[in-house]
Amino acid sequence: MIVQNYEQVAAEEVTEAEGVSIRVVIGKNEGAPNFVMRVFDVEPGAVTPLHTHDWEHEVFVLSGKGRVYGGGKNAPLREGDTVFVPSMEEHRFVNEGEEPLLFICVIPVLEEH
Amino acid sequence: MIVQNYEQVAAEEVTEAEGVSIRVVIGKNEGAPNFVMRVFDVEPGAVTPLHTHDWEHEVFVLSGKGRVYGGGKNAPLREGDTVFVPSMEEHRFVNEGEEPLLFICVIPVLEEH
Repeated sequence: MIVQNYEQVAAEEVTEAEGVSIRVVIGKNEGAPNFVMRVFDVEPGAVTPLHTHDWEHEVFVLSGKGRVYGGGKNAPLREGDTVFVPSMEEHRFVNEGEEPLLFICVIPVLEEH
Repeated sequence: MIVQNYEQVAAEEVTEAEGVSIRVVIGKNEGAPNFVMRVFDVEPGAVTPLHTHDWEHEVFVLSGKGRVYGGGKNAPLREGDTVFVPSMEEHRFVNEGEEPLLFICVIPVLEEH
């Protein structure tokens, strides 16, 4: 097994989204065969790109306050909220609070991750 | 998309482990096609069964203090720790603190979940 704190993992800036960084906490480096766990850090006022792709997201909000847009709807987000975004549904995450919005986002193993 | 707080999901007692409950927060009910997100609640002093299976675990500790045994090693656990347990590695989680040990555990979609 591999045990590490998420803060030990280097955060990578998301080039297309100012104020958004990602840590791949369990992925190919750890030998994950099927799905990849990432931790997103969205700074106050920052947003993730509005985008669509052919894989799903499984999200768990660790801290902060925000909003998610998806499938033509939107919903507030707070600690302990979970979000399932099915494949091909356009979505965006927004930090509407004064603290970082931290969430886990799990995706299938993809070539680029 | 589907948004809900994990506390809205009914907790199921684990019959073989007193003081351990599971919430399936994103699974077949939400239409998850590839992997299932569960939240474990291990009460102080409780342990999960020492067991082995042919699928992996991807774990994120939400709160509490404990220890994980896996692959002949053991490691302390605290908030923000991640654990990758590969398939076929024997493992167990133990709450060594005075508060509930809460962690996310993601597994592949299986027939029984």
